[in-house]
Amino acid sequence: MARVVVDVMLKPEILDPQGQAVANALPRLGVADVASVRIGKRIEIEFDGAADLDRAREIADKLLANPVIEDFTLRVEETPAEGEQQ
Amino acid sequence: MARVVVDVMLKPEILDPQGQAVANALPRLGVADVASVRIGKRIEIEFDGAADLDRAREIADKLLANPVIEDFTLRVEETPAEGEQQ
Repeated sequence: MARVVVDVMLKPEILDPQGQAVANALPRLGVADVASVRIGKRIEIEFDGAADLDRAREIADKLLANPVIEDFTLRVEETPAEGEQQ
Repeated sequence: MARVVVDVMLKPEILDPQGQAVANALPRLGVADVASVRIGKRIEIEFDGAADLDRAREIADKLLANPVIEDFTLRVEETPAEGEQQ
């Protein structure tokens, strides 16, 4: 089992009302030092065998991202948990 | 400017119909070696100054994730582009 992670984010020039709504709510939480919030998608593709980046790119391109308004990045994730787990 | 990335994914025991729909569409693309697809959210929080992980955790906990059905991970992203850019 190998995992490819696809991150799909709106292009920088596209407005992100969902992220803006979160950013607008932050002062009510007492947070004043956040410049912006952008919200996108994270897709985890589990392959039966080895991770196939070309295959994952095809999937992302055809099914996961809208190339008109979104960019995506791909990476093979070695360990299931990266960063700090909550 | 520093960026904290919050990844919010459904807990493993929670069904993910959106990911399942993508997985079900893969055979039509000729892809047979994918075991599962899970779709979650990726949130980029840009801080004016230094990245504040504790603050970001509070934001994630109160605004971004539903702790009943979702887990989240936090990390400071050093370089804006990680992985392979499309």
